[in-house]
Amino acid sequence: MNGAKSLVETLLQSGVDTCFANPGTSEMHFVAALDQSDGMHCVLGLQENIVTGMADGYYRIAGKPACTLLHCGPGLANGLGNLHNARRARSGVLNIVGDQATYHRPLDAPLTADTDAMARTVSQWVRTSTRAADLGQDAAAAVQAARTFPGQISTLIVPSDVSWDEGGVVAAPLAPPAPPAVDGSAIDKAARVLRGHGNVLILLAGQAVMSESQALAWRIARATGASVMADFVTPHLARGRGRLQLERVPYVMDAAIEALGGFDQIILVNAKPPVGFFAYPGKPSTLYQPQTQLHVLTRPEQDPVQALRALAEALNAPHAPIPDPGPRPQVASGRPTPEGLAQTVAALMPEHAIVSDESISYGRGFYRYTHAAPPHDWLHLAGGAIGDGLPVATGAAIGARRQRRVISLQADGSAMYSLQSLWTQARERLPVTTIILNNSKYNILLGEYRDVGAIPGRTAMNMLDLGDPALCWVRLAQGMGVEAARATTMEECADLMARSFESTHPFLIELMV
Amino acid sequence: MNGAKSLVETLLQSGVDTCFANPGTSEMHFVAALDQSDGMHCVLGLQENIVTGMADGYYRIAGKPACTLLHCGPGLANGLGNLHNARRARSGVLNIVGDQATYHRPLDAPLTADTDAMARTVSQWVRTSTRAADLGQDAAAAVQAARTFPGQISTLIVPSDVSWDEGGVVAAPLAPPAPPAVDGSAIDKAARVLRGHGNVLILLAGQAVMSESQALAWRIARATGASVMADFVTPHLARGRGRLQLERVPYVMDAAIEALGGFDQIILVNAKPPVGFFAYPGKPSTLYQPQTQLHVLTRPEQDPVQALRALAEALNAPHAPIPDPGPRPQVASGRPTPEGLAQTVAALMPEHAIVSDESISYGRGFYRYTHAAPPHDWLHLAGGAIGDGLPVATGAAIGARRQRRVISLQADGSAMYSLQSLWTQARERLPVTTIILNNSKYNILLGEYRDVGAIPGRTAMNMLDLGDPALCWVRLAQGMGVEAARATTMEECADLMARSFESTHPFLIELMV
Repeated sequence: MNGAKSLVETLLQSGVDTCFANPGTSEMHFVAALDQSDGMHCVLGLQENIVTGMADGYYRIAGKPACTLLHCGPGLANGLGNLHNARRARSGVLNIVGDQATYHRPLDAPLTADTDAMARTVSQWVRTSTRAADLGQDAAAAVQAARTFPGQISTLIVPSDVSWDEGGVVAAPLAPPAPPAVDGSAIDKAARVLRGHGNVLILLAGQAVMSESQALAWRIARATGASVMADFVTPHLARGRGRLQLERVPYVMDAAIEALGGFDQIILVNAKPPVGFFAYPGKPSTLYQPQTQLHVLTRPEQDPVQALRALAEALNAPHAPIPDPGPRPQVASGRPTPEGLAQTVAALMPEHAIVSDESISYGRGFYRYTHAAPPHDWLHLAGGAIGDGLPVATGAAIGARRQRRVISLQADGSAMYSLQSLWTQARERLPVTTIILNNSKYNILLGEYRDVGAIPGRTAMNMLDLGDPALCWVRLAQGMGVEAARATTMEECADLMARSFESTHPFLIELMV
Repeated sequence: MNGAKSLVETLLQSGVDTCFANPGTSEMHFVAALDQSDGMHCVLGLQENIVTGMADGYYRIAGKPACTLLHCGPGLANGLGNLHNARRARSGVLNIVGDQATYHRPLDAPLTADTDAMARTVSQWVRTSTRAADLGQDAAAAVQAARTFPGQISTLIVPSDVSWDEGGVVAAPLAPPAPPAVDGSAIDKAARVLRGHGNVLILLAGQAVMSESQALAWRIARATGASVMADFVTPHLARGRGRLQLERVPYVMDAAIEALGGFDQIILVNAKPPVGFFAYPGKPSTLYQPQTQLHVLTRPEQDPVQALRALAEALNAPHAPIPDPGPRPQVASGRPTPEGLAQTVAALMPEHAIVSDESISYGRGFYRYTHAAPPHDWLHLAGGAIGDGLPVATGAAIGARRQRRVISLQADGSAMYSLQSLWTQARERLPVTTIILNNSKYNILLGEYRDVGAIPGRTAMNMLDLGDPALCWVRLAQGMGVEAARATTMEECADLMARSFESTHPFLIELMV
């Protein structure tokens, strides 16, 4: 068999059965090998940042990596933004990047680029396969790297002759290494801190914001009087009835400093020390006070459940029921507001829905009004590179095998980065309801601009305003085969949401906010 | 003044008066400085690959660099694809990339990335400015690098504190270095080759396909019996009445080998040795025969006019009028065909039009039918990373100060990479007529797939076909504020083209091919 065939078979044997793709000439032997094999679901994205963003969303929901198929260095380059986000989300993604044949590369044909250097900017693991006989084992190692807890970006570069040459050997799956063991002295230390007299915050992030860790953190908090929060940078949070009413550290620096300012001690559970998203003149870089003491219970690559369970036991913390979030909110009415939208989403969402939230400035208060929704998963942009909301929603729907409703809460400016995702949603008949928050501006930047201390003039507004011409999201969606309608009141929005939740096809609501 | 202000003033003094932008928080002081200065035209692109592609198109027509404004490493990453293309086109582009404050970077906030490494994958010149006092001189050096003949990618990374700190100093413009002198012995050698008895090809590329070089090459060819061709990789060609009826080396390997096979000697004028765009199993990598001798008259960074003039004089080649291309073609009728479209474009285009051609497989025969059009410029994708046609058209219209008609001949699959360009065309009221060649597939890849020796099955077609769902380009354009209509015959297409050429606003024709 040729290298490409050994690659496909190795991927399938290693449990990779979904391929998000935008192939080119140098990948045609891989495409042919996929055609000859059963079991790989291939999903086309119309630009590579859609492809990589879908792989991120897929991992967060399926809990196992998909592969991407990208065309040479420039194809990988187009997908780097959402690979950056996936890396920050600690998602496992395996990139297969076709490239010039080994003997053709020195001739510097037009698409030749430093693919390896591009890959290294976002990947924990990079390898260029150099002969067909090695491609199977390279692929097995690449899957192993992507599956390394909690998930890594792994990039396998495949020169086209390595694909088409004969001599391919299918490789057996390689088990990923176990997460580094929890440190007993860190547990002892945390227990001492929690038994002390200070104000203690247990700050959860990454894998530590899923249900089991939440329940354990709550046990500890109840027993010790500590507080519990989620880091702002939280890619995936288990939420709704039966889950903890966690709030995230706020995005806005002053609010974040206020939220964290009262704590003498912060115990980091898979969280990094909280720092500002950006620096601002005359403001601190860190969100905690200089005198606050930080304690690392677990690093992001360790198992938080094991550590929190050991900590709860060390503290003899009794089981504590998760507090009731109160009655489920009602559908809102009147003019669209962030609160009204959040209440309406909470009122209408089906059980086990997935929310893909790239609402940016509009959505900062959504959590407060959605605690009493049915159990659901909430996905956030983790790397700050806008344009991951729509592809993450798309990949999440595929990761859930179309069995869960996906609700995509999406700012308009960010949506324009990756609107091509809608086409894939239509092609794959995905149950995704997109709500575009059309405010016709980069609202977050207008806020940041005012913080610079100036009123935007004509030149600045020219770079911050999206209203001339107005985008029509109904037409954009329809142009890509997605049914869509505009809502100007919460009643209209609720009606469209309810109708969309009945359908198995994608739908887009353009909410004029 | 702060660093940002010194940056803006230095750019303006260095002749950079156009800024293609998609800013973020770390660029807000630069945006504020732009607001306080007169003379910079700021053009918003809704995704960074639009921004960088526009800067490429601008340079090709304006002949001087614009700057881009990009947000941190991931913002740069989103624009790398078209920077790769701009590098291959040897366009001059100056990227201003805002980044984390110098003291904030070690804290690894979410948007932190290896911006320098990303920049180096596409740039000839990269510098991270480290203090406000240096930013002016760093900017002057960056402009100098971008203007280095024939044009370079230059990236200046500006940490946000370097922007906002006081102590900025405006720097005087730096003249770019003169191109490396033409090599007298290369001219002697070429003259000997041309006086000999072999079949000689003069292969032009880069700056050597503009009018003056064409006339000189034709003089030499007439005097010696040599042939003249343009390289396939030609970003910008002067064409139409009064220009040489040049054909490009074909894209398809077998055709290219046939076109070049008859030549014993090839004289390279700003061209590289012609090689395949990709390697294929069992086929050669180079397009010339093993026994063909290559002679470098000028490298891409040398002045071809000087060299060709010296060569013509060495050969005592008399002045030779450019051959008449025959009568101007008529508007075609009936079913759309590549020939019919080319004839119709040639029949209707105004003088000094600019054609941005990303027609990929559909446009391979366009040249033959457009030699007798009025004088015009023809722009091609030079780096093979699809998605530069629409942004290049947009930037070219701005580079021509809205005074020239731009005709964008655009394959549908590639158009989906950068459709956001249409919004900028509407915002800037640009005289761009886009003709989308809607064939609902990645046609070039279907050809490549068949070359692998197989008929595409369901999995392969799933990655090569764009027809499910069908894209509606009329709705997509309207959604971004661009008037649009569909044409199914050449008569309809001609009517819409003629009407659009009368208007100063952008228009999109969806041609069903």
